[in-house]
Amino acid sequence: MADREVCVHLLPQLAAPGRLTGGLAVVIDVLRATTTIVHALAAGCVAVRPCLDVDEARKIADRLPAGKALLGGERGGKPLPGFDLGNSPRDYTPRRCKDTTLVLTTSNGTPALVRAAEAERVLVAAFVNFSAVCEQIRLDARPVHIVCAGSEGEPCLEDTLLAGALVDFLCEETDARLNDSARLAWDCFENHGRILAGALEVSKGGVDLASLGYEDDIIAAGEVDRFALVPELRRDPMRVEVGAVGIVKSRWQK
Amino acid sequence: MADREVCVHLLPQLAAPGRLTGGLAVVIDVLRATTTIVHALAAGCVAVRPCLDVDEARKIADRLPAGKALLGGERGGKPLPGFDLGNSPRDYTPRRCKDTTLVLTTSNGTPALVRAAEAERVLVAAFVNFSAVCEQIRLDARPVHIVCAGSEGEPCLEDTLLAGALVDFLCEETDARLNDSARLAWDCFENHGRILAGALEVSKGGVDLASLGYEDDIIAAGEVDRFALVPELRRDPMRVEVGAVGIVKSRWQK
Repeated sequence: MADREVCVHLLPQLAAPGRLTGGLAVVIDVLRATTTIVHALAAGCVAVRPCLDVDEARKIADRLPAGKALLGGERGGKPLPGFDLGNSPRDYTPRRCKDTTLVLTTSNGTPALVRAAEAERVLVAAFVNFSAVCEQIRLDARPVHIVCAGSEGEPCLEDTLLAGALVDFLCEETDARLNDSARLAWDCFENHGRILAGALEVSKGGVDLASLGYEDDIIAAGEVDRFALVPELRRDPMRVEVGAVGIVKSRWQK
Repeated sequence: MADREVCVHLLPQLAAPGRLTGGLAVVIDVLRATTTIVHALAAGCVAVRPCLDVDEARKIADRLPAGKALLGGERGGKPLPGFDLGNSPRDYTPRRCKDTTLVLTTSNGTPALVRAAEAERVLVAAFVNFSAVCEQIRLDARPVHIVCAGSEGEPCLEDTLLAGALVDFLCEETDARLNDSARLAWDCFENHGRILAGALEVSKGGVDLASLGYEDDIIAAGEVDRFALVPELRRDPMRVEVGAVGIVKSRWQK
């Protein structure tokens, strides 16, 4: 059997146009969009609509039936005026989420999701659903493209760390053909994986969140395997729903 | 004393405009431009003129006194028609280089140099002059920006590895404030530093060079501390000359 292609893209824009076509994309924005998406779906949201633009998000929410829309997101890390919720994962409680559609606009995560839509299949990954994501990647034969959201146009530690954990899993499971960024991510996991909480704290995203008073979000983002669900992108309209549920076994090796 | 800022930019375009202003930039293109520049200056070239464009390079060479210009570089890794030399470091011998100006145009390294010119001071680094570069960075108090050329618009293993070796040195020498990419580079050095030759071979740049028959260039690029000179950017016209010579002690820790 030929080696499986496993590519990491440290930023969405580092994947050349057409690069993801036909592949399985795994989108990562640990602090905080993909962590929040897993929390929201686990808490009962039926779907998450990723929006690039704040006004677009408001319009989509307005068009949903009364009481069925939840408007969430951030700019500069802070909640947006008139929105129901910011981007703090634990604020997405069952009471708020049940049977609603979350319309979500964030600085880095939603653009990454929209970019990744080029792939044939798109999953959403965070530490909170790590082993469930591993299972879905394992069962899929497509080339894997792990797309990191990064932070303000720069690669970031926390997304690269999770990308590296997935690379580590894939290299144990299969003969993988890695791009250079996948090797960098793997190195990051090797060195930072066993000190996950500390890594999230020293990362630029972690430092920025702490300065805004969101220390709890950093802790929430590091809760490995808290959930067993894998969000998956659906189309027309573009949205994220629960694609699969289940952890066969813990794949977290540190 | 305040911590010294140490930033790695995994690609030139990942440094936002103005980011390098006032700083010390260290430009890296291990395979092969910065390795070639060190070889050329060690072999007697008086200066290297980096050019973005092949036609521009020809014009600059034409304007130099007869016998004083050496035209070198590559596109797609291959030598250019009518050029004196390609981008193979060891081809830059004293017989060819003595008292000439090398006009050099390469795919990734020369754009990185031109981008880095925004900084107040710009050094050129490769494994072949590692410890000499460490010494110059140590003696300078400016914020450090390590600019990796990358390969075809993607971060690459070999440049990140050398960036990480410099970060490792700086973190031993001083209290450094690292950006996330500097942490990633450091991880890369920690895991790949002790297997440098193997890392150069498995990198995409190494694989591409081997497929073109340039295995010797990969070996040449991994000869740590073969030279004691540090090329430095000068202006009006933009060129690289020997800025300093000297290794106080070996800084290579693997």
